[in-house]
Amino acid sequence: MTTMKILTEAELRRIVPLDLEAIACVEDAFHALATKAVVMPPILRLDMPEQNGEVDVKTAYVPGLDGFAIKISPGFFDNPKIGLPSTNGLMVLFSTKTGLVQAVLLDNGYLTDVRTAAAGAVAARHLSRPDASVAAIFGAGMQAKLQLEALSLVRPIREARIWARDAAKAETAALELTAKLGFPVHAVADGRAAVDGADIVVTTTPSERPVLKAEWLQPGQHVTAMGSDAEHKNEIEPAVITGAGLYVADSLRQTRRLGELHHAIEAGLVTEGALFPELGEIIAGRKPGRSGPDEITVADLTGTGIQDTAIATLAAARAAGASAGTVFES
Amino acid sequence: MTTMKILTEAELRRIVPLDLEAIACVEDAFHALATKAVVMPPILRLDMPEQNGEVDVKTAYVPGLDGFAIKISPGFFDNPKIGLPSTNGLMVLFSTKTGLVQAVLLDNGYLTDVRTAAAGAVAARHLSRPDASVAAIFGAGMQAKLQLEALSLVRPIREARIWARDAAKAETAALELTAKLGFPVHAVADGRAAVDGADIVVTTTPSERPVLKAEWLQPGQHVTAMGSDAEHKNEIEPAVITGAGLYVADSLRQTRRLGELHHAIEAGLVTEGALFPELGEIIAGRKPGRSGPDEITVADLTGTGIQDTAIATLAAARAAGASAGTVFES
Repeated sequence: MTTMKILTEAELRRIVPLDLEAIACVEDAFHALATKAVVMPPILRLDMPEQNGEVDVKTAYVPGLDGFAIKISPGFFDNPKIGLPSTNGLMVLFSTKTGLVQAVLLDNGYLTDVRTAAAGAVAARHLSRPDASVAAIFGAGMQAKLQLEALSLVRPIREARIWARDAAKAETAALELTAKLGFPVHAVADGRAAVDGADIVVTTTPSERPVLKAEWLQPGQHVTAMGSDAEHKNEIEPAVITGAGLYVADSLRQTRRLGELHHAIEAGLVTEGALFPELGEIIAGRKPGRSGPDEITVADLTGTGIQDTAIATLAAARAAGASAGTVFES
Repeated sequence: MTTMKILTEAELRRIVPLDLEAIACVEDAFHALATKAVVMPPILRLDMPEQNGEVDVKTAYVPGLDGFAIKISPGFFDNPKIGLPSTNGLMVLFSTKTGLVQAVLLDNGYLTDVRTAAAGAVAARHLSRPDASVAAIFGAGMQAKLQLEALSLVRPIREARIWARDAAKAETAALELTAKLGFPVHAVADGRAAVDGADIVVTTTPSERPVLKAEWLQPGQHVTAMGSDAEHKNEIEPAVITGAGLYVADSLRQTRRLGELHHAIEAGLVTEGALFPELGEIIAGRKPGRSGPDEITVADLTGTGIQDTAIATLAAARAAGASAGTVFES
């Protein structure tokens, strides 16, 4: 008989908001990835082309943590036609001592939203200029909004621009974010204009063709590409990577296969074995970060299992503290 | 908001016993593997050597089924020292239309026990002589007992022998099985004696060195090797495979990497690209099975994600019929 906690999305939204502690927990995870004997197997991916659906399963074991999470993320892209969100899923937290289920987090993808936004904030904290105050966001979905919110927790953002393929959606997001964040957020119809004068550029679209051109970039800017988490996705021109002073991967093994780096390799601009620093190595001080205020830096984030283990561990700790969730025995 | 069912181990034991329907459902799964555009990704494996623990995640998409399962199987081998079983875990059943969670099956590994035993019965039904009546089981654990029970559902078994490294455990299992199955089951201290005159030999141990020698085998016998589901496990001498008239894999991609075949390849006795039939191809009549009563046949079963999707689908259907489980919303 195992005793576990089952938490609903509503409970998780209440106890795990996007805040500085969530960002710190993801930052610690990247630090651990660079400094501990973390085990993070390749992502399991199940494709169901007939259904226009896919599932990713991610996990990581972090020595010293009481638990490890396994996250199951389905993406079914015809769902919006019937009024359902494309992405869903859950996380299961297991004891690292016994393998017994500790918690089932029925988050419908919410914790992934938080840990993904937190990773964007971690990248900005360690790679963008400390005084970065203007942000340009490519994309107007849930994650685009969370990215801007996360940036505003770690940098003194006072203005933002939103570019999206759907201009009306960009407009709505801009209004919503202006009200929520307390600084002006404008929808901008031209990508180049969005980037012009920005300190931080975040791409968070499902695009399969570059939406960010290398020639638009200006000295001192930091770019975080969030959207590419599968072979066919591609948000930034490969020349953004080769033109940058510093390219950083969340997991080099993953970005070579799934991230923006993958397209630079395919274009023959980067060799397959080329070495780049990982975000955790910079956080841990093992590799240098930004060299100065004029360098262009790029973070390529594909999403890692260690972020899931980190956020699930935080959720379980918060649930214990808040006496949230339903105790279940099996 | 998603509505799902949560089922406990006790409920699943009640509604999904090891019976002919469970065997048929696994047989259908193998048939589908050979005849449909099944998608079955490689197993995700997380090793935690410090904890003497590991986790396997398996899945498969079967066109035509309403759902697909993702199974998470932790194995923590120090658990018995603290009075806990080594293996645990759960399955999650998702809709193939929307990716939404349909059921969380908190089975602690029970459904894996059933679908693994059912696969043994399916192999015996399609590869052993129809009149097979004497079984030899190597191993005395839970799965050893279930294998014999499953065999007795598909073949006219009237006698069985149990060999195990721990003779006392073999003795206990033999007594228990004699009482349960209604035919004599003897513990046998010598492996060769267990095999002598048997029609079906099943190995179901966690051994890392062969427990079944090729020279013990006699014409007409069928061998099912169940225990090897990881690179380091090895129950039968490679010469059992090369000496057999027919070698059959559950999934050739898996047995080349994880099964007994892997050790025959490593020993240089079988080439890496050598082709062998899969169990589903024989069930579907696409490849010939046993050629006659004197042939020695070998089934190498590593356990496949399609078996998990099959048994989880059966469990969800039975739960609906029996109004079992707790309805949960998130």
